[in-house]
Amino acid sequence: MLFWQKDAGSQNDVTLGVSIGGTQTVFGYVDRKGRLLANAAIPTIPHQAADLFFERLHQGAKTLLESFHEKCKIVGVGVNAPNANYHTGMIESPPNLSWEYVDVLAEIGKYYHVPVATTNEANAIALGEMLFGAAQGMKNFIVITLGTGLGSGIVANGELICGADGNAGEIGHTTVDVNGRECGCGRRGCLETYVSATGICRTVHDLICNSNDLSDLRNIRYENLTFKMIYDAAQRGDRLALQAFDETGKILGMKLADSVAHLSPEAVIFFGGLVTAGDLLFNPAKQSMEEHLFGPFKNKVKLLPSGLEELHASILGASALIWNDLKTHTGISFRKVYQ
Amino acid sequence: MLFWQKDAGSQNDVTLGVSIGGTQTVFGYVDRKGRLLANAAIPTIPHQAADLFFERLHQGAKTLLESFHEKCKIVGVGVNAPNANYHTGMIESPPNLSWEYVDVLAEIGKYYHVPVATTNEANAIALGEMLFGAAQGMKNFIVITLGTGLGSGIVANGELICGADGNAGEIGHTTVDVNGRECGCGRRGCLETYVSATGICRTVHDLICNSNDLSDLRNIRYENLTFKMIYDAAQRGDRLALQAFDETGKILGMKLADSVAHLSPEAVIFFGGLVTAGDLLFNPAKQSMEEHLFGPFKNKVKLLPSGLEELHASILGASALIWNDLKTHTGISFRKVYQ
Repeated sequence: MLFWQKDAGSQNDVTLGVSIGGTQTVFGYVDRKGRLLANAAIPTIPHQAADLFFERLHQGAKTLLESFHEKCKIVGVGVNAPNANYHTGMIESPPNLSWEYVDVLAEIGKYYHVPVATTNEANAIALGEMLFGAAQGMKNFIVITLGTGLGSGIVANGELICGADGNAGEIGHTTVDVNGRECGCGRRGCLETYVSATGICRTVHDLICNSNDLSDLRNIRYENLTFKMIYDAAQRGDRLALQAFDETGKILGMKLADSVAHLSPEAVIFFGGLVTAGDLLFNPAKQSMEEHLFGPFKNKVKLLPSGLEELHASILGASALIWNDLKTHTGISFRKVYQ
Repeated sequence: MLFWQKDAGSQNDVTLGVSIGGTQTVFGYVDRKGRLLANAAIPTIPHQAADLFFERLHQGAKTLLESFHEKCKIVGVGVNAPNANYHTGMIESPPNLSWEYVDVLAEIGKYYHVPVATTNEANAIALGEMLFGAAQGMKNFIVITLGTGLGSGIVANGELICGADGNAGEIGHTTVDVNGRECGCGRRGCLETYVSATGICRTVHDLICNSNDLSDLRNIRYENLTFKMIYDAAQRGDRLALQAFDETGKILGMKLADSVAHLSPEAVIFFGGLVTAGDLLFNPAKQSMEEHLFGPFKNKVKLLPSGLEELHASILGASALIWNDLKTHTGISFRKVYQ
């Protein structure tokens, strides 16, 4: 078991932030100002049993801590993982991992006698933005993560919204078109089938058959097409690529107007690979959002890029789970640990 | 000024709940268990200045209090009104009233030295359901009010969600079809143009021209058609009326699936005139919602009728604004009054 160093002052308080991915798990120590003091990674090994994974994680984190010149006190462990549920503290049938139900609080509790909390990556990023990033000082905002899929985390009244079952914030699975594209979730027309790296690739192929624009992208097979190729083509002025960004932004803006009608956020903050597209994506998104917004919300909602360094954002987000709960003392997962 | 009676015990604590409508204002005294002890009404008089209105309201409320056999202590005044903003305590350009901006907290504060809070009717009903109605014990739910239009109030983490500008919870102005029906708000295809008393009348006329079903409703002019006529026709087995309910329910269910994806509520609670339709509306709504729900939310979300007596629900909701804040001590409007 790893306890905190007895003589450490509160200025040396750190949280251990852990981000479990399908192939790699990254972790690091983060202070209350959001400074990442040290970080490392281990392979996740999808087919290894969860208890062995958490043992390896502890060994890695312990080794990392020992490399510090100063002594630090670990005040909590935050974990983000696919399908992690903030309310229950469980990872529930994560995709790409052999684990079925893993009690994260219990697994971490074997090694650390400190508060533990867990949630999915988009929710963790939302708390990271609130404490250390673009949402500092905001009490109502939405984070949209734009990568292979579209994830989201909602903060209202200064609190993460997890809903009755812990799964709130699935804006990627709101419906653009009930007869639209097949989604990995089994439904049709989900927002993430249009607005995501995969979504814009699908849109390019839709444009290839439906428009007559000349384009370098016509020479690339569907399986080989990447967001980067579309972005590079757009930078060269490729009309088909530009139109793909325009259509993606329009759909994003239209659905954001629905999200705003629910939640009236101060800002929508974008995180992830697609954010590099910048104005190509967010100009049409902003225009379309304003066009579709209900009157009282017009010209109020900011669209902002993430304020977190992308490489370490998931560790910062995981750590923010703890720093936020230590600040507010309202964390459900905490009460569970303290019982 | 009306102060509370000095010798009243806490068991005689009451709130004054006020519901301002376009033509009539109802008010009453409600105890902490949600019992309406007495109620009355005054005409709103849309073209009268707001300060004169609030003077008349105070006179009416004072007379009502004097009719009590027991002495009661007024512990707060809750007001629901069109376009009332919980954050600012202001009524902002209410439709059908000549008032532009009215500071409800200041107007009520002229007569009562107790906490005052204000919000719109759907939000007040949501708090009423949480304290006294169908949402007792719930921390995450949505209230949908189905009358001439479609209003909504959202509770998450046990708190009313008003958003950054105080206007959150406008689900009636999420989009069903960007090229759809013109809405009074200036946009097209808003949910309330399909799902509301007005919406189902429009749907009947859409079916009159697009289907060949025989129907008594074909003999009624658009301006004369009412929800009650459609309901009565459906009760008689009129196929066109039944289809109108079916289509209305399907659209409601489809959009509820989007709301659930945002908020993961334990239940959606329906209030207002259309709730009398019962299974005619809510069976297709439930089926359509389940069909469109993202997997993790399926078979979890209850659709429930209001647990408040409709006649007095808006007074109970206005009172709940105060009882809820006295319970949680987090009301923003309160801090303003206490300054």
